[in-house]
Amino acid sequence: MTKKPTPLVSPLAPARFPDLPPVAGVRFASANSGTKYKNRDDVMLAELAPGSTIAGVFTQSSTRAAPVLDCQKKIAGSSDGGAAFFVNAGNANAFTGARGDGSVDAITSATAQALGFAPARVFSSSTGVIGEPLPHKAIIAKLSEMKTSLSDDAIASAAHAILTTDTFAKGAFTTIQGDGGKITIAGFAKGSGMIAPDMATMLVYIFTDAKVARPLLQDIVATATQSTFNCITVDSDTSTSDTLLVAATGQSSAAEITANDDNFRTALHGIMLDLAHQVIRDGEGATKFVQIRVTGATTDADARKIAMSVANSPLVKTAIAGEDPNWGRIVMAVGKSGAAADRDRLAVSFGDILVAEKGWVSPSYTEQQGVAYMKNQDISINIDIGLGTGSAIVWTCDLTHGYIEINADYRS
Amino acid sequence: MTKKPTPLVSPLAPARFPDLPPVAGVRFASANSGTKYKNRDDVMLAELAPGSTIAGVFTQSSTRAAPVLDCQKKIAGSSDGGAAFFVNAGNANAFTGARGDGSVDAITSATAQALGFAPARVFSSSTGVIGEPLPHKAIIAKLSEMKTSLSDDAIASAAHAILTTDTFAKGAFTTIQGDGGKITIAGFAKGSGMIAPDMATMLVYIFTDAKVARPLLQDIVATATQSTFNCITVDSDTSTSDTLLVAATGQSSAAEITANDDNFRTALHGIMLDLAHQVIRDGEGATKFVQIRVTGATTDADARKIAMSVANSPLVKTAIAGEDPNWGRIVMAVGKSGAAADRDRLAVSFGDILVAEKGWVSPSYTEQQGVAYMKNQDISINIDIGLGTGSAIVWTCDLTHGYIEINADYRS
Repeated sequence: MTKKPTPLVSPLAPARFPDLPPVAGVRFASANSGTKYKNRDDVMLAELAPGSTIAGVFTQSSTRAAPVLDCQKKIAGSSDGGAAFFVNAGNANAFTGARGDGSVDAITSATAQALGFAPARVFSSSTGVIGEPLPHKAIIAKLSEMKTSLSDDAIASAAHAILTTDTFAKGAFTTIQGDGGKITIAGFAKGSGMIAPDMATMLVYIFTDAKVARPLLQDIVATATQSTFNCITVDSDTSTSDTLLVAATGQSSAAEITANDDNFRTALHGIMLDLAHQVIRDGEGATKFVQIRVTGATTDADARKIAMSVANSPLVKTAIAGEDPNWGRIVMAVGKSGAAADRDRLAVSFGDILVAEKGWVSPSYTEQQGVAYMKNQDISINIDIGLGTGSAIVWTCDLTHGYIEINADYRS
Repeated sequence: MTKKPTPLVSPLAPARFPDLPPVAGVRFASANSGTKYKNRDDVMLAELAPGSTIAGVFTQSSTRAAPVLDCQKKIAGSSDGGAAFFVNAGNANAFTGARGDGSVDAITSATAQALGFAPARVFSSSTGVIGEPLPHKAIIAKLSEMKTSLSDDAIASAAHAILTTDTFAKGAFTTIQGDGGKITIAGFAKGSGMIAPDMATMLVYIFTDAKVARPLLQDIVATATQSTFNCITVDSDTSTSDTLLVAATGQSSAAEITANDDNFRTALHGIMLDLAHQVIRDGEGATKFVQIRVTGATTDADARKIAMSVANSPLVKTAIAGEDPNWGRIVMAVGKSGAAADRDRLAVSFGDILVAEKGWVSPSYTEQQGVAYMKNQDISINIDIGLGTGSAIVWTCDLTHGYIEINADYRS
């Protein structure tokens, strides 16, 4: 590949932002606080009807940002009364010591007071620069304006207000037929953009009018996270601020979701997967969307270890960027993963093209086939370990000059 | 950083290749087999005096190349009779199935026959393209020429014959006073170059005239590997072929080395560390040599986990490439390591400059200090976890456009 100017919008972006429908019981507002971005909204508020249940999944980092720690303290609390999500973009309030905790308290308390809710029901997130004090007064000053403009139509503006260096806003929705009524699920995400001296932060907010008890909602969300957001990687670097919050307002006329309701579980999983894929499609400098499927591993955990080893290998990712069918690097990445593998049982395919098997290149494979396949924008790498029934699928993007440009070509 | 043409020689290269002295009991030869490189030697032979003891450390990859598997079978065998190392560059003989094993047998048997040694005493390595059959007949055809030209003066030519896309040959030597005589240690390494569709291979050969029993030599080498070659990383991708072989000919008049001989242990460790650092200084696209020292971790293992997490973080490595004192990314990499850490006890320094402490930027730190420090070619990052006494030091290089260029900007 030759080095070209980094495009303003990822070449892997969807054609347009979807027409997200209103979700009964949720109202949105956004505004500009001037924290970092001057000509666009940079704070968003989602107001949730009384009784909404809220599930959350957060970064496992040991250097978590202040708002993440606050959310984790609150997430299992009572579902009584109204609730809110509050997000600011441009400052991550991470590694800001006790002052950072104070900013979170100030924002969540002010939001609670403005809306008449308990502070324990206000969940905040911050994304952007790290190590700088959050100017929470300027943010709080926007609350009355936002309260006035709350609208069930404003979800698209909210989705745009949380972006940092993302090249497109990420949204997804679906409606399903529940028992006695229609259920809507709509959500948005940001992530994979970076700017000096930020780090990628993935924030995801999903709303539904379904009626779901909190423990069940948490279980559904945590389970779906394992095969969606926890299966994507741009560069193996984990943010201090990753946050996924799902709110269920219970305003649909459909009956309460039960543990056996695969319909809702599948629909929510689908939205999460869609948003996760959109995050990869906006990976820094990405020009290829890559799926890595591992089958035949000794265990599912081993399959995941192998898939992630391939997905995070700089040599595999640069080969894909160069449209090089370099299967030797895939074999290398399998070998270094630490999971059980046997050179002579391994099979590697690009899409449906069998490339390597039985410890060597497949007799049916030609380099021409590989070269042609690698020109696709969406690449599928299938690896069969030949040892057991463990499997995993993960998604990643390629590693290009664009990544270096975004992350090294500046002075902070 | 701006993108410049990748330099022919790493900017981090030493001024010149050292004048490696002869090692009593070792003779070298090299030749051109035409496997891949046409205008330079690409095979090398080291002949070792009868009774030489040999220690080896090999890649942990589960997709190890055929010569590595063969070396591992032989390494603990008898030290009787002469021995030899044989290396070819340009073809890794990796992922070549049963045919690859046959090539190793052919080469080691032919070498043994030419020199009058047992095949079990011939250790071979291959580095270069993966998945292609090794043209072992052309290689074996060079044996008689090499046998004739064996010389104890030819170590420099041998060091050059094993290179692939390295930008400089890597050598180191020392002499120490043993009990009753001088002991010489000299060695060379290759590594960190890549070429389509190769992967990095690190090969290291060290020779000494010391008298050391094989189990003790193996113990000394294995122990020293933990704090030298196992503490370097260019891009986290582990080769299928990494090999370190150390031969002790026993021809020095010094008394046999004992387990308590710290003098020899320290000298060998020094040579291994020197060669390991030279491999990093030839990392693909490297413009900075980076030391990461972690102290105060709960255990040494945790310290190593944190140091490697920082050393392998693309965001940390691109920040260093951009001469950006982006300490937030270091905090992020500590947080994602999985090792025990507490945001509020962490301290980060660049060289002697205290940057962050107690969960926030240090009051004494100025961005100007950090910017000035990052202009150095050798960067030292010190991280104190503040929890215990575990420590580790690892070395890496930065991640630049040169890395992408070398690994993506070609068609295989």
